[in-house]
Formats: sequence, C-alpha cells, structure tokens
Amino acid sequence: MVQIIVAEHAGFCFGVKRAIQLAEEALKDTNQGRKVFSMGPLIHNPQEVHRLERQGLSLLQEEDSLGENSTVIVRSHGIPPQRERELLSKGVKLVDATCPFVKAVHEAVVKLSKEGYFVVLVGEKRHPEVIGTLGYLQECGGKGVVVESREDLKQVLGKDKVGIVAQTTQNEQFFKEVVGEIALWAREVKVINTICNATSERQEDVYQLAPQVDLMVIVGGKNSGNTRRLYEISKSLNPKSYHIETPEELQREWFQGVKKVGITAGASTPDWIIQQTVRRIQELVV
Amino acid sequence: MVQIIVAEHAGFCFGVKRAIQLAEEALKDTNQGRKVFSMGPLIHNPQEVHRLERQGLSLLQEEDSLGENSTVIVRSHGIPPQRERELLSKGVKLVDATCPFVKAVHEAVVKLSKEGYFVVLVGEKRHPEVIGTLGYLQECGGKGVVVESREDLKQVLGKDKVGIVAQTTQNEQFFKEVVGEIALWAREVKVINTICNATSERQEDVYQLAPQVDLMVIVGGKNSGNTRRLYEISKSLNPKSYHIETPEELQREWFQGVKKVGITAGASTPDWIIQQTVRRIQELVV
Repeated sequence: MVQIIVAEHAGFCFGVKRAIQLAEEALKDTNQGRKVFSMGPLIHNPQEVHRLERQGLSLLQEEDSLGENSTVIVRSHGIPPQRERELLSKGVKLVDATCPFVKAVHEAVVKLSKEGYFVVLVGEKRHPEVIGTLGYLQECGGKGVVVESREDLKQVLGKDKVGIVAQTTQNEQFFKEVVGEIALWAREVKVINTICNATSERQEDVYQLAPQVDLMVIVGGKNSGNTRRLYEISKSLNPKSYHIETPEELQREWFQGVKKVGITAGASTPDWIIQQTVRRIQELVV
Repeated sequence: MVQIIVAEHAGFCFGVKRAIQLAEEALKDTNQGRKVFSMGPLIHNPQEVHRLERQGLSLLQEEDSLGENSTVIVRSHGIPPQRERELLSKGVKLVDATCPFVKAVHEAVVKLSKEGYFVVLVGEKRHPEVIGTLGYLQECGGKGVVVESREDLKQVLGKDKVGIVAQTTQNEQFFKEVVGEIALWAREVKVINTICNATSERQEDVYQLAPQVDLMVIVGGKNSGNTRRLYEISKSLNPKSYHIETPEELQREWFQGVKKVGITAGASTPDWIIQQTVRRIQELVV
C-alpha cells in the first residue's frame, strides 16, 4: 500500500487563478465575433492553454493584425509599458491580467530608481516577468541589471547604493545569498522582497515534504520557472525526484519499493492535472 | 628553515592609531597637574594600555571624582550620548577619540530610525561600541535589537521595515547571513554596511593566508572582539591556529615540523608586539 501526500500549497496561485478567470470572462465576447488573443501562452502550462484554446483563445502572433475588434489578454507575468502603449494605440481592448504581485515589482523598481538606487532584479533574464519589469525600469530612466547566477554579480561591483528586488517566483535561497553578498560591498542596500507568498509556501512545502518521502513528483509545465525551481529544491533533498508535465510521463518502475510518495505542483499547474497524477500513481502501484 | 608571513593588514587600524595619538597628546597636560582618565581601557590590548599608564593615564573608576582639572578620553569605541552629557556637566575636558567609523554607525541608526525602520545592530551585546550605539538609538526614540547569534533573530520576526547596521568589527560572514535571512521575511530592508574597511581587510587576509600555511598565530588582546573573530575565521580554515596576547605564550612544540607560519593581529595590537612575536618564533624554530 502506497501513501500519497499532496503538498498543502500545490498548484494554482492567486495570480494564475485570476488570469484564467479574466480570460474566461473575455472569451465570452467571442460570441459577438471578437477575436481574443493572449500575449504569449496565458500560463506556463501547455495543457491548460490547450483547454482555453478550445474555448477560442489564440496565441498572438507577429503577423496578426489587431484592431478595435480584438481583445488582448496580458498574462499574469505582465508586459513592458512600451508594449502596452503600442497595443492601446491600435485600439484593441486590453484585459490586464498582470498579477498584482508582479505589479508590485514594477512599482518597487521605479521607487528604488527614483531614490537613486542601482537596481538588481534577481531573476531569469529571459522570463517574461523579468522582461516586463525591465521595461518599467527603463521607462523611469533607472539603471540596473538582472542577476540570474553568481556570475552576474560582477556587474554590481563598485555600485554605491543598490536596490534589490526579485522575480516573484525566485528561489529564496539564491535571493538570500545575493542580498547578503551585495550588502558586504555596497555602502547602502535597500531590499524590497518581492518574492510572492505563493512561491515561498510552495518552496517551504518541498523543504518539508521531500526529505520524508521515498519519491517526489513535481507536476508542471517544463517551461514553468517556478515549477523547475521546486524540482531543483526537491532534487537537492531527495535524489528520487521527478518533474513531469502530464501523468503519462509517470513510469511504473520508478515506484518499485516505494512506500511514500510526495506530490507538489507549480503555481501554473491546474488542479485537474494534479488529480489525474494522483489517480495514475494509484494505478501504477497496484 | 621556517618561512614567516605577516599579513598585509596586521595590527593597528586608523581609529586606534588616532585614539593613541590623541591620548598621548592629552597626557602632555599631566605636566600641568591635570589628571587624565580613559573611560574603559583605551584599547583592547592590556600591554599597550600599560605603556600608556606609565605615561600617566588612569582608568576611570566609579569612585573617581571628576572636575575642571580632569581630562577624560573617550576611546575609539565611543560612548552613549547620555554619558557624554553627564561628563560635560561635571566640567571635565573631554577628548573624543571615538573612531569616525563608529560615529558613522551612530549616524546610521539615527537615520534609519527617522525613516521608520526597526533597527537591527549586528554585533556583541556587551561590546562598548554596541552600548554606545544603542545610546544613540534610544536618544532618537528609535526601536531595535542587537543580533549576536541566530537565536536573536526571533526578535526581528514580524517586523515590516527593518534597517540593518553592524558593529564596525563584525564578522562579515555572519552579517551576510543575518541580512539574507531578514530580507526573506521583512517587506522592506535597508542595509547600511558599517563594517569598517580595516575589519574586512584583516578578515580577508586570514581567508587568504590561513589555508596556505602550516600554522597561524593571531596576536591580540584576549578581550579584543575583532581579534577573536580573526582567530575564529582562522581556526575554521586551519586547525593549527593559535590566539596569543604576548609572545611569551608561544610554545616550542607547536612548531615541530612546521615550515610556513602565518601571523596576523587585531586592529588593537601594537606593532611592537607583532615584531616581538616574529622574533620569538624565529628563536623557537632554530
């Protein structure tokens, strides 16, 4: 008999739930002949995106011509303000599903810049959230860099006043190291911790759960940064950790001799995939 | 043949040199019958204090009556402002040898308090510098705590805006950990790194030197916090690390089979003791 423990805070966070609600609301307009686009995949979960596509959502492509008959959904990651103005100038209806916690990062970088800080954004250089935030930094005339690895810290050397924020889904441990390191060189450091609660809770769960189970399954998009970080944390605590996107990836042999399975899921993983995963594990271990 | 390497930044720092110069200057007045006191040992080095006592310096005692004929030297660690006013009200001549870097800590806690931060002073609760700084915090109506160990971090939990400074001679590694930790809980953290260059340089030297020698000798007062921290860092990198106050403590058997000796000294250790130490090691290894 296998025991399956699903982490307390697995799956959708507040911002993702809100984005999906806003999208489903906007999709009702397709009945009146409106074309509804999302700027980039609405969430980093291909399966959930397909579900919404079946309801009429299209991924905005370079060649799409936008006009007054178009609705564009800005996903929870947000976009640069320059891009937002460009869209509005085309007369589209903009549905802003930017997560309020991401908006808080935009505000934080602007505030820090105005106070004269060189901004360090701890995050992934190519993540859409980071690209959006950098747009706000640029718009207010601020200066700063993205720190993704220790290597990037070189660009902060010699800066006198440093303001530090994080991508909302940043790994807490790395953020902590970066802050500590910079505080040793810079004369003055101001940190606004913008890692969202959903991120800390999900990571905290893994720190608790991974060491006490025989095997960990982390469910979520392979393109989801926050899911990947849950997997990395889990792997560091329990070598039998697997990152899957769909239950079909589960393999029977993983579960040989396993008595206790832990499951968690990134903030962009829908409940229905978590539930399918639980059921599939129950079938495999019979 | 033994190789002896003295660390580049061993011994007296700027603030200590300045305090001793000011003291020697003040001691000239003893010729005109003035009584010259220091508030607490002028520096954390008994041998150097004895040298100054021979020039007429007295350690201020509870029972000493002070008046217009007294000079009181405030040592580099500084004193609380309340104590300073008390002394001035007795009509004494005050010679303020407070290190300018310590004055910067006083200013930093006042600034942070006025900006609404709960102040965390990373340092030793009973160190005179810390006691002086807490006086300034109290005077401006600020709130805060001293963090000496991880245990003390509990008192910072739940604080929204936290301002962090350090005792000038704080261990950089611990400071870094404290800053990183607090940045994870608090909404906003402002760090003014008040660890002085002399401290970083001396610690940096130990990180470099200790792993490449067979034995490390750290010279300095047993009551000197910054010397003790050099010893702790050294010990963590090289088990053959010894903290001595005077060359007499060196033991011949420590040096058996030793080819390379590293020497460093705290910021309150006079050159003459370092030189005696080098000579004594040369005698012992012959």
